[in-house]
Amino acid sequence: MNTLNVKLGERSYPIYIDTQILGKADLIAKHIPCNQVLVVTNDTIAPLYLEKTLESLKDFDCDSLILPDGEQYKTIETSQLIFDKLLTKRYNRTATLIALGGGVIGDITGFAAACYQRGIHFIQIPTTLLAQVDSSVGGKTGVNHPLGKNMIGAFHQPRCVIADTDTLNTLDDRQLSAGIAEVIKYGLISDYEFFVWLENNIESILTRDTEALAYAIERSCQNKADVVAADEREGGKRALLNLGHTFGHAIETGTGYGTWLHGEAVASGMLMAANLSASHGWMDTDDVTRIENLLIKSNLPTFAPEEVSTDQFMQHMSVDKKVLAGKLRFVLMKGIGKAFVTEDIQHELLINMLNNVPKSNSRVLSE
Amino acid sequence: MNTLNVKLGERSYPIYIDTQILGKADLIAKHIPCNQVLVVTNDTIAPLYLEKTLESLKDFDCDSLILPDGEQYKTIETSQLIFDKLLTKRYNRTATLIALGGGVIGDITGFAAACYQRGIHFIQIPTTLLAQVDSSVGGKTGVNHPLGKNMIGAFHQPRCVIADTDTLNTLDDRQLSAGIAEVIKYGLISDYEFFVWLENNIESILTRDTEALAYAIERSCQNKADVVAADEREGGKRALLNLGHTFGHAIETGTGYGTWLHGEAVASGMLMAANLSASHGWMDTDDVTRIENLLIKSNLPTFAPEEVSTDQFMQHMSVDKKVLAGKLRFVLMKGIGKAFVTEDIQHELLINMLNNVPKSNSRVLSE
Repeated sequence: MNTLNVKLGERSYPIYIDTQILGKADLIAKHIPCNQVLVVTNDTIAPLYLEKTLESLKDFDCDSLILPDGEQYKTIETSQLIFDKLLTKRYNRTATLIALGGGVIGDITGFAAACYQRGIHFIQIPTTLLAQVDSSVGGKTGVNHPLGKNMIGAFHQPRCVIADTDTLNTLDDRQLSAGIAEVIKYGLISDYEFFVWLENNIESILTRDTEALAYAIERSCQNKADVVAADEREGGKRALLNLGHTFGHAIETGTGYGTWLHGEAVASGMLMAANLSASHGWMDTDDVTRIENLLIKSNLPTFAPEEVSTDQFMQHMSVDKKVLAGKLRFVLMKGIGKAFVTEDIQHELLINMLNNVPKSNSRVLSE
Repeated sequence: MNTLNVKLGERSYPIYIDTQILGKADLIAKHIPCNQVLVVTNDTIAPLYLEKTLESLKDFDCDSLILPDGEQYKTIETSQLIFDKLLTKRYNRTATLIALGGGVIGDITGFAAACYQRGIHFIQIPTTLLAQVDSSVGGKTGVNHPLGKNMIGAFHQPRCVIADTDTLNTLDDRQLSAGIAEVIKYGLISDYEFFVWLENNIESILTRDTEALAYAIERSCQNKADVVAADEREGGKRALLNLGHTFGHAIETGTGYGTWLHGEAVASGMLMAANLSASHGWMDTDDVTRIENLLIKSNLPTFAPEEVSTDQFMQHMSVDKKVLAGKLRFVLMKGIGKAFVTEDIQHELLINMLNNVPKSNSRVLSE
């Protein structure tokens, strides 16, 4: 089994990556300090993995809560359902919350764990590629607000993460591709060698080769863990992880949460960032083409949604958390693997890029 | 001006205590790092102090939000109103939230500051005695849930606290007494000398003598700051601060938030803790009488509400945050100024005390 340690002082924790580790009682038990456990999942994941998970927790006083599936339920109202359950069943502050599901379940359960009695224990069992390579590292938790994504949240580190690659076999193709978008992101930010590996191995990932998946997950988590260890609270370097996210969040907000998958929006946003980088002379157009080709091979969108106009992009981006004191900040690239943060962009080049991005109103991918 | 530094490493901050410091532009300005400021207050405090506060902030991009007054509004729904305002006005993560009001405004505004974009700056201007001696130290923020008080929250330290004793002149007598309950608590926990000072000076405090008030506030904050510095996240010693709160929260939950003031419930709860201590032989009955007399002189209740039965006390206490793994924990006393935490209480003595506590269904005090 691959074990990756996220180094954050007394908040350090392991990420376990392997096949057949969901349901291993001894693996999870050592990270649960007291008796009360609540597993939070959704109605898509529950029929697949809830029974197996509960079976591994039968030595604990364990209950479960099944939420509706979808980004549109990542709200403060849904987190109330978790609080209701915890209080009705008299969970105390030594209790452990376990998130079994994708990024939405992880974010909302983590937020509930951060806030319930001002913080209880938290374990993640991510069941999507996106959640395994993104939400499992960094401790960001939160919910959306109608006016902005992840606007309400907390930093709250899990006690461990169990990433079972077998869970990806039940993931639909569209969700798998959305996860690949974040994997590609780590190559673009600071790991050129990994980007090249992805260009050569994307087929193995799309066919869910277990070894290729485990390698991609571990290398992605390692990349993210390095950044987070250097900047846990997002004062500086951590902002690089938002490559593609400023444009991506505008797409998600503009189309309504749940229409585009987060990874799809990030894919489109990364290509927009690449084009904006190229128009400023920071990046070769050849590199932009390589990025575009890898996204296409990964079945990811290389266009923006027709219904989000340039004006709407500008409006949604101005409430993004990356806006500092009114100034738009962008994560751009000086080549593949060389991301950087800048406020010094030329307004007309930005508008020009937004006006010229290819648009489509078709569904992004067939499910 | 008295300045007390709460020592919490990089989260350290000053508490300023004096007359005529609300509205001092230079005092507050140095604790606001960036331009965007939102003052959150309620409809009782706004007519009294909002204009003066905004006047001192005129060099900033400042707005205000007026919430309804009352513990019954300390909910996650009300915190949503703050998030709505922040997002509608496009506040970013360098913004500062200022809480102008009592404990409810401080707790809810602090919680919003902790969660908005995963944490923004926060300043407290407490305008009640209770808030000045309690909420201004410790960084506890949160909202209530129908099934339990302060069940949803976060630790989030302010950048400074401005405690203007003049604001206590507009406080009604009942609110002043409620604050005195928490002041007495510090004497009971670990400061016998302060308790004696209170016995001798309670009249000066009730007549709002400025010097007596400033002394009581500073000594209370110092007592609390010492405890919090030793145990910021409430792993051990900090639990002592909950003296009277386990019974008190049961009173508040049992009567519905806002019927009894928090300080009134704590006063009643402290006397119950004293009686329970005495029945176990840990405390002299003479000391219980001294406590009771000081509470009576302070116009505080020395009885419990008639509508909360022994069964209801037991039920409400079992969801209290101080319950560890199903076991009730109590803060009791081995004499005045010698509080300690214990799980070793005799069940029949607890039931006996609850059965025999004097009860009244009259309003606690006239307003």
